[in-house]
Amino acid sequence: MATDLVSRLSLDHGGSILLAVMDGVGDIPIPEFGGLTPLEKAKTPNLDKLTQSGALGQQLPVGRGITPGSGPGHLALFGYDPVKYLVGRGALAALGIGFKLQHGDLAARINFCTLDDAGVILDRRAGRISTELCTELVEALKPITIPGVEVFVEPVKEHRACVIFRGPGLSESIHDTDPGLVGEKPLAVIATASGAERAVEVVAEFISKASVILRDKTPANGLLLRGFALHEDLPTLKDRFKLNPAAVALYPMYRGVASLAGMEQYQSEPADLSGEIKAAKNAVKDGKDFVFLHHKYTDSSGEDGDHERKATEIEKFDSAIPGLLECGFDVICITGDHSTPCPMKLHSWHPVPVLIYGGPQRTGWSTRFTEREAASGALGTFQGHELMSLLLAAAGRLAKFGA
Amino acid sequence: MATDLVSRLSLDHGGSILLAVMDGVGDIPIPEFGGLTPLEKAKTPNLDKLTQSGALGQQLPVGRGITPGSGPGHLALFGYDPVKYLVGRGALAALGIGFKLQHGDLAARINFCTLDDAGVILDRRAGRISTELCTELVEALKPITIPGVEVFVEPVKEHRACVIFRGPGLSESIHDTDPGLVGEKPLAVIATASGAERAVEVVAEFISKASVILRDKTPANGLLLRGFALHEDLPTLKDRFKLNPAAVALYPMYRGVASLAGMEQYQSEPADLSGEIKAAKNAVKDGKDFVFLHHKYTDSSGEDGDHERKATEIEKFDSAIPGLLECGFDVICITGDHSTPCPMKLHSWHPVPVLIYGGPQRTGWSTRFTEREAASGALGTFQGHELMSLLLAAAGRLAKFGA
Repeated sequence: MATDLVSRLSLDHGGSILLAVMDGVGDIPIPEFGGLTPLEKAKTPNLDKLTQSGALGQQLPVGRGITPGSGPGHLALFGYDPVKYLVGRGALAALGIGFKLQHGDLAARINFCTLDDAGVILDRRAGRISTELCTELVEALKPITIPGVEVFVEPVKEHRACVIFRGPGLSESIHDTDPGLVGEKPLAVIATASGAERAVEVVAEFISKASVILRDKTPANGLLLRGFALHEDLPTLKDRFKLNPAAVALYPMYRGVASLAGMEQYQSEPADLSGEIKAAKNAVKDGKDFVFLHHKYTDSSGEDGDHERKATEIEKFDSAIPGLLECGFDVICITGDHSTPCPMKLHSWHPVPVLIYGGPQRTGWSTRFTEREAASGALGTFQGHELMSLLLAAAGRLAKFGA
Repeated sequence: MATDLVSRLSLDHGGSILLAVMDGVGDIPIPEFGGLTPLEKAKTPNLDKLTQSGALGQQLPVGRGITPGSGPGHLALFGYDPVKYLVGRGALAALGIGFKLQHGDLAARINFCTLDDAGVILDRRAGRISTELCTELVEALKPITIPGVEVFVEPVKEHRACVIFRGPGLSESIHDTDPGLVGEKPLAVIATASGAERAVEVVAEFISKASVILRDKTPANGLLLRGFALHEDLPTLKDRFKLNPAAVALYPMYRGVASLAGMEQYQSEPADLSGEIKAAKNAVKDGKDFVFLHHKYTDSSGEDGDHERKATEIEKFDSAIPGLLECGFDVICITGDHSTPCPMKLHSWHPVPVLIYGGPQRTGWSTRFTEREAASGALGTFQGHELMSLLLAAAGRLAKFGA
């Protein structure tokens, strides 16, 4: 369905919505749990209660079989078809460290690497140097200037950093300089489409100047660039759905994706779920009618393959629900941005359970917030980016289509 | 899926199809029914029997979260993507009173209103004047002539009427003259896009002449126009699916939408379900291979919030089923054009149960025609406009795609 139809029908009044995301919450049966998933194993009295008075379903963040990154997973939840609204890896790297991208910025990921005397790559990650050394190298690169553009170099983690070029006429149609394997030289900066002449010039000048600075360092004496992404402002949730949105998230990456959708950031004090609840309350007090709240640790425990911890993180989130109910939202949605099954230790393509509580719903069909019940819930299975229209409808924020 | 593929595969022979629509039939749990819906509460031995030998599913008339008007809801059931095939409000108003729109007609809704001496709107509905007074005012306006166009003015209900202009070169790109609030003057007739010069001229002349006629009336001494819609003929069910279709409906609005799809109208004598069954029988005798039959009162009881009456109307429809079976259709489909949950007293976005009986089906999965069973039925959840291909397939009217 066309999201511009939803956009056209959106009203600037109606109920308030909480979108609470347990990152990576979906899972698969865990043998050690006797075939239960962490959601099934966890004791979740509060989620159970909401489920019994709400409606359950499951969403596909991108599509069947497609494993989403955190960017697409969240954009879908915010109502953006993630296949249409692409955010490049370079841009996500910048957002992930809290860098405020502007419209037209060209971002790329940097790998510090080890080159031999002939300039051939010996190690694409320079032995995974420490984040401290990475920060030192970045400091050494910061003085680089290029006429007509601003250059920002920022450390990420270990051998990874990122660079952002700000200036007119840039393009993302640039081939990675990282050949993806050792035994070759870094690739020359070449355009992959016409109109990228200026960007090629800028990036080549940056690499040339950086190479001189790094030349005599060790073990990282070179750099590889990849994931060139030109940042374009997205239409905001205000533009699209007449919402006045806020974000409550502890990690820069999720704050970054939320800011792409035009959400105002609310700080959490302390930096845990109790602080996030306070922040959500403040957002409601300020008249925000859409609050995105992010719980990270269900994902990190999944990526560690730690099903016991994942179940505990689910229980922690469950115990936060009374506080969330006190905020006074008209509609509460609980879901994840993707599944992170513990046995896989990775993001996966499996559908993600969704609970909508509040508004007129087909209630009483489900008893627990689990993958199994979600698959036969009243909401059915749908695309992640269709969630927004269900939330707007539940909050009475969508006009009727046609007479 | 592209409906033009369905169109391309349609055969001009095969079984006959009954599409029986219980208007607004879907609902949500009713507390007074112990959490059952009217469909679950009603005694429906005939629907149960069809369900047990048929296949169940649910359809989304427009899309998730989107509440359809009656126009889009029915167009979807007739196989038209309602987002692609838009029917303007003015055109639906005209269809609703049984006015036969022709290709190129420009229709608009009229509100009779009360203006003060300075021409400022005091009441946009003139105190909801009686339908009798509305009809008198319309009679007074009927003599208006405009060179080069035919003008039709027709009463609707209370303060509402409609006007249709018939002539070459008209356009619907005209702004409402209704400012939508009191304390302002009616807006001037202005174009919202180029090419509407002739339409602006015609509408302005109509308003000017009407204003002179209404000037000294009371309490309605002015008029506001909105919902300008240029009527364009749709491709018919014959054009698209090689069907020879008929419509059996008691209300002009549904006859109107059916006529858009090229259905021949069959009169019901008496004007109730028994008359509708007779009309359906006559249509089959005449060789019609697609009959749309409309039952209104499930919707009206839902809009009144009367769940007891809605359950009774469902039971009334149920008792009509033996008569419908006698008509000899090869395939019988029972569904609604949208949900009208009693607690909401409004159309809603909730999916609508669908039953297909006849043809090779995955039968024996469901026992009752209810929202809950439909959500896990053999047909799954699909877009309303995809229903037609399922019906054509069941009736053996679709060729194989590819070798």
